[in-house]
Amino acid sequence: MDSIIKFIEENDQIKSLFNIEIIQAEMGNVKTKMVVRENMLNAAKICHGGALFSFADYTFALISNIYGNNALAISANINFANPAYLGDILIATAEELNRTKSTGLYEIKIERETDKKLIAFFTGEVFVKKSQGVKSQGVKY
Amino acid sequence: MDSIIKFIEENDQIKSLFNIEIIQAEMGNVKTKMVVRENMLNAAKICHGGALFSFADYTFALISNIYGNNALAISANINFANPAYLGDILIATAEELNRTKSTGLYEIKIERETDKKLIAFFTGEVFVKKSQGVKSQGVKY
Amino acid sequence: MDSIIKFIEENDQIKSLFNIEIIQAEMGNVKTKMVVRENMLNAAKICHGGALFSFADYTFALISNIYGNNALAISANINFANPAYLGDILIATAEELNRTKSTGLYEIKIERETDKKLIAFFTGEVFVKKSQGVKSQGVKY
Amino acid sequence: MDSIIKFIEENDQIKSLFNIEIIQAEMGNVKTKMVVRENMLNAAKICHGGALFSFADYTFALISNIYGNNALAISANINFANPAYLGDILIATAEELNRTKSTGLYEIKIERETDKKLIAFFTGEVFVKKSQGVKSQGVKY
Repeated sequence: MDSIIKFIEENDQIKSLFNIEIIQAEMGNVKTKMVVRENMLNAAKICHGGALFSFADYTFALISNIYGNNALAISANINFANPAYLGDILIATAEELNRTKSTGLYEIKIERETDKKLIAFFTGEVFVKKSQGVKSQGVKY
Repeated sequence: MDSIIKFIEENDQIKSLFNIEIIQAEMGNVKTKMVVRENMLNAAKICHGGALFSFADYTFALISNIYGNNALAISANINFANPAYLGDILIATAEELNRTKSTGLYEIKIERETDKKLIAFFTGEVFVKKSQGVKSQGVKY
Repeated sequence: MDSIIKFIEENDQIKSLFNIEIIQAEMGNVKTKMVVRENMLNAAKICHGGALFSFADYTFALISNIYGNNALAISANINFANPAYLGDILIATAEELNRTKSTGLYEIKIERETDKKLIAFFTGEVFVKKSQGVKSQGVKY
Repeated sequence: MDSIIKFIEENDQIKSLFNIEIIQAEMGNVKTKMVVRENMLNAAKICHGGALFSFADYTFALISNIYGNNALAISANINFANPAYLGDILIATAEELNRTKSTGLYEIKIERETDKKLIAFFTGEVFVKKSQGVKSQGVKY
């Protein structure tokens, strides 16, 4: 399990693009953090939906791949609840809603750390591939 | 109309983060382009859902704000149809499905340029704010 | 508040079409019940997505209109987690995720009563109309 | 192919519940019709989201099962664009956006026949089960 998280942590480029930090990554319990920076603002000076989605999506990748299977995102839905501004510290909390042999369903809540205000609500569905991921050289995905 | 597009083009940070290029931006007809780069890959070496979403979302911002109103994204749904790889040239084509005084509905199709394969399908809804945007110094949004 | 619930209960035809029962309907706390009947089955003999959606949507109407405003559904997303069969007793539990002056976001979980298995997960967004509903003769909506 | 459509037509209960009529059902080209009746109205006297969803979902079942595989709906998203009223004749037009060995993506547009106004826009994703459906007695699904 840890090696998968480590592998994603080291190889997923979105993490460094948005400076996402993993707070917690255990079975069914994943929490991440992102600070809204200048390069995430849209023309209206609020955090871009794409940055919020990327943040949620990265967290979704962590929780859905934690079993060592190869979970492939097939769909996602996001609702933008309240705007986030430059400097806001955002916390994403992932929850597993359902998991079968072939699919998995997850929700990710993005909240502002200071006032716990909901910024965005994301649900994502994965298709679980039969092939148990790349297993060479101790690297699993 | 042009000044809005120009304003978004110059101020939306996501555009430069993902090197998005505007091919066409007219009323009800917006087309953009993005090349899959190293910094958009996830751990499985395919284009990150967050990059695809950001690309669609930026295109969605262009088409939904073209009337000069202040359109605020409230929800979006994305289906990941086929993987995109490093170097793939992606084209996003936006279409307005519905527009009322208070809401707007748009679809964005992301296709690979070479084989027209569908990479992702995005639908987004905006809430149209009454205030007709910032009007100072010829800059509208 | 009660009169709105009563008004919806008596006038929404979907309730009687699917024999939906209101278990609880208080501010931010709505629970409903539906038993899977013959007329809800699809050709594969499992409960039709349309019946599950209708059940969730009705529950969504209850929770989103509870303030006495006129909440208009603008979008909804549903994930079908596990199949429900003839005779299954389903419980829908609604939660308010966000509410602003102009929009509201809700989730509805549909679970089978016996084993608490998730059947479907629904998120819905409403647009809150300024006109505070019909207020004549004690009938509000 | 025809036998599948016939099988769904005869066995899906939602069709008769909402008096849905199949106008056309060919590979990649499915069109259905539903008239808004008294029993589909919500408390605001507009066609219930559940009825619109059921109508779209039934059309989605037709187009996604047309290959003779067993397509299982896993998620759907619907945007309610404009209200439909008692007596409105609604036409649903389905389009296949993507199909792989294991998943399929479809859009269904619901328009009012008289003025071609968009009533709802639906996207649905199926998981394609390996087992090629029930094949006994010429009945396939």
